[in-house]
Amino acid sequence: MNVLTTFLEYATQGFNDIVDLTPDLNRVIQENAFTEGHMLVFVPGATAGITTIEYEPGLLKDIPEFFEKILPMNATYHHNETWHDGNGYAHVRAALLKPDLMIPFKAGKLILGTWQQVVLVDFDNRPRHRRIAVQLTGI
Amino acid sequence: MNVLTTFLEYATQGFNDIVDLTPDLNRVIQENAFTEGHMLVFVPGATAGITTIEYEPGLLKDIPEFFEKILPMNATYHHNETWHDGNGYAHVRAALLKPDLMIPFKAGKLILGTWQQVVLVDFDNRPRHRRIAVQLTGI
Amino acid sequence: MNVLTTFLEYATQGFNDIVDLTPDLNRVIQENAFTEGHMLVFVPGATAGITTIEYEPGLLKDIPEFFEKILPMNATYHHNETWHDGNGYAHVRAALLKPDLMIPFKAGKLILGTWQQVVLVDFDNRPRHRRIAVQLTGI
Repeated sequence: MNVLTTFLEYATQGFNDIVDLTPDLNRVIQENAFTEGHMLVFVPGATAGITTIEYEPGLLKDIPEFFEKILPMNATYHHNETWHDGNGYAHVRAALLKPDLMIPFKAGKLILGTWQQVVLVDFDNRPRHRRIAVQLTGI
Repeated sequence: MNVLTTFLEYATQGFNDIVDLTPDLNRVIQENAFTEGHMLVFVPGATAGITTIEYEPGLLKDIPEFFEKILPMNATYHHNETWHDGNGYAHVRAALLKPDLMIPFKAGKLILGTWQQVVLVDFDNRPRHRRIAVQLTGI
Repeated sequence: MNVLTTFLEYATQGFNDIVDLTPDLNRVIQENAFTEGHMLVFVPGATAGITTIEYEPGLLKDIPEFFEKILPMNATYHHNETWHDGNGYAHVRAALLKPDLMIPFKAGKLILGTWQQVVLVDFDNRPRHRRIAVQLTGI
């Protein structure tokens, strides 16, 4: 059993930008010659989250529209009174979606559905540079 | 330390069908003689999720009613314009609930509350055959 | 590779009480001389969850207000017909937020954003004694 921690970097647009991480994640497994175990994907920061979706244009609109419905950008948030940076909505959305995802892999490949991709959702209200922690544990 | 990956199969009804996985999960630990570590439960596919609930008849109604309130089946979803399969609601619900859950175990048993069960929630709009990945890491 | 399971205890107030676990979690890594791996934080029980937030006074109000909006305490829940303990809202909120969080660590320290803390959210409708499972896997 081994553990390996690495980082992947992405420039995001913010405002619910959804980035497909899957090809990069499978490459990390293969480049490091792991075969079976689990991969932790974690976004350091309190205004983004990690989940899986079918990465197709319809859902890239549906998911932002859903978050806008339950946590509108322009509603009043106490967080904005603290920092005046206007991203209170992004903090609550990120607390709900959470920053971690654990995916099993076997035979050197993530165990995912055929139409299931691992995505970073960046809720912040400005472009961000995101450094995602990717950790492999296994053989 | 060892890692072991296996699969459990379930026939679900879809439409927020909630299946208690707990007895099968504890059996996997015991049959493979693990004592301490963590179990990853992961549903491949983008229209189902894994969480924990008290598995009692009231909540088996409350949870579907909650998801119907925030993400109604018959609302308009862009996803449905892509595939015309009518399960856009299921994709967004699954992205929110997420496909992974990690549970610690010790002395050969999952560390759960007395009234806490691990469940698969199948949001899809038709019966499905689900193959759940279960991975043990530990000693 | 090693695995270590320990418990941290907290007295909570319930009613969406949000407790910052981060200093205790970093201390567990250092006291047990782990350097690289991942930490599983898991709350046994079906009325609380674990996530990350920027732990500042504004969000400590925003997050309870958000959950009250989507799952009001005084709405009707079938769960309350089963047990008459009035915490149906807490069960559905906890099923949504989920009881687990996995955080990577390296150089003996959790990999978190500068303004990102790991929190227990206790949704129950009374003060509780919570015993949180903390499990380290790594080197």
